[in-house]
Order: sequence, then C-alpha cells, then structure tokens
Amino acid sequence: MKGYVQVYTGNGKGKTTAAIGLAIRAAGAGLPVFFAQFVKGMKYSEIGALERYADLIAVRQYGRGCFITREADKEDVEQSRKGLADSAEALKTGNYRLVILDEACIAIHYKLFSIDDLLQAIDRRKADCEVVVTGRYAPQELLDMADLVTEMKEVKHYYAKGVQARTGIER
Amino acid sequence: MKGYVQVYTGNGKGKTTAAIGLAIRAAGAGLPVFFAQFVKGMKYSEIGALERYADLIAVRQYGRGCFITREADKEDVEQSRKGLADSAEALKTGNYRLVILDEACIAIHYKLFSIDDLLQAIDRRKADCEVVVTGRYAPQELLDMADLVTEMKEVKHYYAKGVQARTGIER
Repeated sequence: MKGYVQVYTGNGKGKTTAAIGLAIRAAGAGLPVFFAQFVKGMKYSEIGALERYADLIAVRQYGRGCFITREADKEDVEQSRKGLADSAEALKTGNYRLVILDEACIAIHYKLFSIDDLLQAIDRRKADCEVVVTGRYAPQELLDMADLVTEMKEVKHYYAKGVQARTGIER
Repeated sequence: MKGYVQVYTGNGKGKTTAAIGLAIRAAGAGLPVFFAQFVKGMKYSEIGALERYADLIAVRQYGRGCFITREADKEDVEQSRKGLADSAEALKTGNYRLVILDEACIAIHYKLFSIDDLLQAIDRRKADCEVVVTGRYAPQELLDMADLVTEMKEVKHYYAKGVQARTGIER
C-alpha cells in the first residue's frame, strides 16, 4: 500500500476530530499509528480515550496551549521542533503506517517551525507511510504536495451564540 | 449541559471519520454514545475499532451498502426506518449523551425516510442529548435547525488519480 499525504484544513469544526477518527480506523485494521499533536497541550478527552489503543497508537503532545492570549516563546519553539523531529523519525523508520501531525499548520502559522522542514520530513517518509496534517491556514506548498485536501468550512457555529467548549464534545 | 445539533456534510473526506472522532472524544469523557450508521453496512475497520469502547459506545448498523450500482429496495427502507426508530428512542431516553446518525443525510437523499421524521426525532430528544448528523446532501431544513454546520469540501482527492479505498485508511 502506497502512503499518501492528506490535509484537513479550514475554519470549521472537525479537523482534529477527523484525525482522531483516522487513528482509530487505522488501529481497527491493526495498523500502527504515530499521533503527534502540536500547539495544544491539554489532555483533552480524546487524548485520554486513545489510551485504550496504546498498543497501536503512540500519542505525543508537543504544545503548551494556544496563542490567543499570549505570544509564542522559546519553549513553544523548542517543543514544536522536538515534535517535528520525532515525527520525522516516525515517518522514516517504517514502525508506523500512519503518522498524524495534528495542528502542524498552526505551528507553521506561528513560525514554530518552517514549512520547508515539514515538507522535508514528509518527503523522506517510508513509501508505505500515510501522512495526515491538520490545522487552519495550511500553506500553499503543503496543499500542492498533498494527495488529498479537505477544507472543513464553518457554515454555522454555536460559538457565535456564546457556547463555551464542553468536555466530551469539543475537548 | 444543553445538547446541540451538529451537522457534517459536503463532498469531502472526513464526515464519518469526524463522527468516529466525536464518539471517541465523548467516550474519553465518560459520556455514553449511541452510534447509528445508515446505508453503509460493511464492518469497516472503524466499526471494529469501536468494540474496545463497547462499555460506552453502542454501535448499530442499518445499511446494506451504497446505491452506486443498484436501486434502494424495500429491505433498505425497512432497515433505515428501524435505525431511525432506534435512534429516536436513544435520543429521548436519557441513556445517551451523544447520538450520532451517520449517513442519515444519504438515507434521506435516497428517500429511505423523510426529513420530517428525522427532525421530529431530533426535536423530541432529551435536553442534554447532543446530536450529530452526517452525510452529503444535508437538507436545508436540517441546516436551518442545526446549531453547528461544517461543510467538508473536497479540494483535492486521490480517488481522481484512481486510488481505491484502502483498509485502515478509508474503510
């Protein structure tokens, strides 16, 4: 099976959620998965839920929370770069059939690492390794090299009504 | 927690995948989930994967496969209606905090049940029950009553290159 590059971007709900679904589907078929999450750092419900698949899904978080109320600092950069290095390793070893870089587009948007570094890691992957990259603001270079791109487009969102993120539903 | 109505529609990859992710996230928070899948009937990898969460996620399939090569018949209609009746029950009992009607929009598109029947079931749900409806061709009436709508928009897809659905990745 040849591995492709899938990108889930756009401003709508469902990108990380779809990445979790992809990890579960792969695990259901017995495929080993490396799930790297950038920027976000909290142990969200979905991260906890994946513990039941610890035999097939390796989950790593490389974030310290989002940048809505603060600037990215040196430690954010270091964490993200470590995440990219670990992902690059996971992509080329052949130990994983699916490598997910959740919120990597956001990491690039905040200049935690460069698009060139990401593309190089993807480019050096083992041939049968499928790659999934998620996050808003996917750079054009990533879209160009991707085999599949889905834009999650927000048509209507209850956040506009003032609904806060709820445990078990959004996080 | 008040329950909302979420819709994932559009022609892009990621709708059922996101629904699986939502089920996993809810389970990770200990919320009981009813996952009804319409139209599709095969035991896909993701359906098998959910078995590890059988204590929290009840999975029911009400389909016999898609209608690309055949017409919907009486048995398809019966199965789908049973699925809608079971879902309506799950929505109102209070036994579930999240009820997912995967591919229900497709069931409506093929006239296996009506949009009015779906809206009535959703309308009669217990107040804290979150509802997720997926599938292409979401009817306008559903979009109108939804609190959140994400359109999964296909920007690029490898099926166009002749790639077949692969076990563990698409199914």
